[in-house]
Amino acid sequence: MPILVMKFGGTSVATLDRISRAAKRVGVEVANGYDVIVIVSAMSGETNKLVGFVEETSPMFDAREYDAVVSSGENVTAGLMALTLQEMEIPARSWQGWQVPLKTTSAHSAARIEEIPPENILAKFGEGMKVAVVAGFQGISPEGRITTLGRGGSDTTAVAFAAAFGAERCDIYTDVDGVYTTDPRISDKARKLDKIAFEEMLELASLGAKVLQTRSVELAMRYKVKLRVLSSFGEMDESAGTLVCDEEDIVESNVVAGVAYSRDEAKMTLISVADRPGIAAAIFGPLADAGVNVDMIVQNIAEEGRTDMTFSCPTNQVARAEAAMNKAKEAGDINFHDLVADTNVAKVSVVGIGMRSHAGVAAKMFNALKDEGINIKVITTSEIKISVLIDRKYMELAVQALHDVFELEKAS
Amino acid sequence: MPILVMKFGGTSVATLDRISRAAKRVGVEVANGYDVIVIVSAMSGETNKLVGFVEETSPMFDAREYDAVVSSGENVTAGLMALTLQEMEIPARSWQGWQVPLKTTSAHSAARIEEIPPENILAKFGEGMKVAVVAGFQGISPEGRITTLGRGGSDTTAVAFAAAFGAERCDIYTDVDGVYTTDPRISDKARKLDKIAFEEMLELASLGAKVLQTRSVELAMRYKVKLRVLSSFGEMDESAGTLVCDEEDIVESNVVAGVAYSRDEAKMTLISVADRPGIAAAIFGPLADAGVNVDMIVQNIAEEGRTDMTFSCPTNQVARAEAAMNKAKEAGDINFHDLVADTNVAKVSVVGIGMRSHAGVAAKMFNALKDEGINIKVITTSEIKISVLIDRKYMELAVQALHDVFELEKAS
Repeated sequence: MPILVMKFGGTSVATLDRISRAAKRVGVEVANGYDVIVIVSAMSGETNKLVGFVEETSPMFDAREYDAVVSSGENVTAGLMALTLQEMEIPARSWQGWQVPLKTTSAHSAARIEEIPPENILAKFGEGMKVAVVAGFQGISPEGRITTLGRGGSDTTAVAFAAAFGAERCDIYTDVDGVYTTDPRISDKARKLDKIAFEEMLELASLGAKVLQTRSVELAMRYKVKLRVLSSFGEMDESAGTLVCDEEDIVESNVVAGVAYSRDEAKMTLISVADRPGIAAAIFGPLADAGVNVDMIVQNIAEEGRTDMTFSCPTNQVARAEAAMNKAKEAGDINFHDLVADTNVAKVSVVGIGMRSHAGVAAKMFNALKDEGINIKVITTSEIKISVLIDRKYMELAVQALHDVFELEKAS
Repeated sequence: MPILVMKFGGTSVATLDRISRAAKRVGVEVANGYDVIVIVSAMSGETNKLVGFVEETSPMFDAREYDAVVSSGENVTAGLMALTLQEMEIPARSWQGWQVPLKTTSAHSAARIEEIPPENILAKFGEGMKVAVVAGFQGISPEGRITTLGRGGSDTTAVAFAAAFGAERCDIYTDVDGVYTTDPRISDKARKLDKIAFEEMLELASLGAKVLQTRSVELAMRYKVKLRVLSSFGEMDESAGTLVCDEEDIVESNVVAGVAYSRDEAKMTLISVADRPGIAAAIFGPLADAGVNVDMIVQNIAEEGRTDMTFSCPTNQVARAEAAMNKAKEAGDINFHDLVADTNVAKVSVVGIGMRSHAGVAAKMFNALKDEGINIKVITTSEIKISVLIDRKYMELAVQALHDVFELEKAS
């Protein structure tokens, strides 16, 4: 039997009624001839409740105990889903992470999957079981303790199972009906994409389009897992949702696939840094040690022997970044005149594999922004992405202008 | 280090604040020089919520999935208790049943403990861990599935750990401060017992004094585990609670230790049964097959070749008993004129190991009931117990009269 992986997120299993609706979708795929591996999240709200308990009990918690506590919500959903399927006369059973076993590293609360031996579940499929319901987000460490994969880790669980079992496809059921050219709340011209390339999805995921966890997309790309994102409340036909796939599987595509944005950006500038070989390491080493996620970096030569260094980071890490820089200055590791933080910025990006073969995307983007009178503060580019930092008040306008200029409302 | 087992029930860990108070008690015993094994129940209400989910999902549920779901509440409490102890700088970690491993039979939702290998936990004590927090009520089957021990199974978990680890004592912390001579809500003369023999506790437990699960007392008796029942809201001194122990450890005791009652009894009479060898088996076999828990049995010869057969069972099993009897009659296995159910009865019992060596307890009991004008419908006796079935409206009066006549308000 071909194997299909279906993942249901927290809102899709939030109540017994929703679990029942999700189970009906599983039943359809069983009727279609698949052996199905279902990955479930906790009922929405449960994990937050458990995390709240842990944080209230112990602010600097032992991550091993955190994992033991917060993983329990998925166990409940897995059992209830198996029972629901059994009521529909579909042979099913639940599996907790340690039962599979889903082997991970010992990095508690942010563990990485090392191995998923398929034997146990395959043996049950061989005995006539049609659905293996697996508790997402959790695994077991080499020491035999329960681990979790970090928030959103159930997407990663699903893709890892699809890879380990050679599944025909991995369907991620969620509360949106696919990946859009941009956020429909910002542009009413936003269009659902039927297909998107892994690389594009990766850029969009890490740029703040919260449809899929970045790691799950990376994993799908590495193991060539066909990944589909679709709504658990909509249709189930062939064209439902968005297929995330290899770029060869996309016959025609727009140069730009989508416009992403991120509101939570801050721009920080170290003014008049004494320049010398190794100065970048002297700045960004302490920032990394302080847990600051630096995104964009720009260096301008201001005068002979001195430079301005600008970087961006999430708004809530500004205080931490300032502390790290001032400490490095006091220690004599770096020397700068001033540190200026601008928390009124936003990042807007255009993403598309078509950029590789089409020149002029950057020029078109910059012109469109200029025409709207939007000043660009920082620019970074990759092979398939151009990002700019702008004043936050222009963010929606920029997204709409870029969506228009690249004609994303039209399918290719 | 000597080992102590401490068990906290659902009301003792109902909130983070209560978990913290329970943890302080554990801290006292650690300071007293013990290595402590803490057994925890789920936060009160959690297990009922999960059972509700399962029953709503699947009325005839797969007990394996039931166990996977309902065991999760204890995992949460175990992790939170370990974190609370760590905050108090007491080295602690949580263990789920399968991690210990607590090995059970495959009788899901009513599994029996087969083995608790102490090596893993002892190794951690050897490394300096002071407290092992174990999720109660759960274990692992030979097939690697999660099992549960039945409601109240955390008491049994605690006693089994005390036996497996040769613990000095097993302290059961609950919401009452010990075992009473009778229910204080029925008689204001009820007195807390400092000590009670295993055999007496066993009779009281199975008679409806809901302080300890019957199986935990059986297990404690078999392995000579000193069991103490005490309140998690009261004092912690030597004399707190009630010690359940071997009768040799009780120097002086009253002839009668306590008066128990059970409201949920029904009296059923098969009138004019055609008597023949094997008729008892023909009646009680089908009742057992139908899952009816028959308690008392009385047979009266009514006329030549016919007999009246009376038995008692829980009120909510009357319909099932009637169905089983009528089916057996239709099948020609038994023959009776009528089946009369009386659901307005209650059972009252006096229990005491002193009865073995003191004659006249039964006569004293029957006289006391006669003096109150209470008619006895059925009598059964064991070596250390006399039970009577009476009209339910006289239940409180009977309990009070028996408490008085045996002077239970006075310590021996």
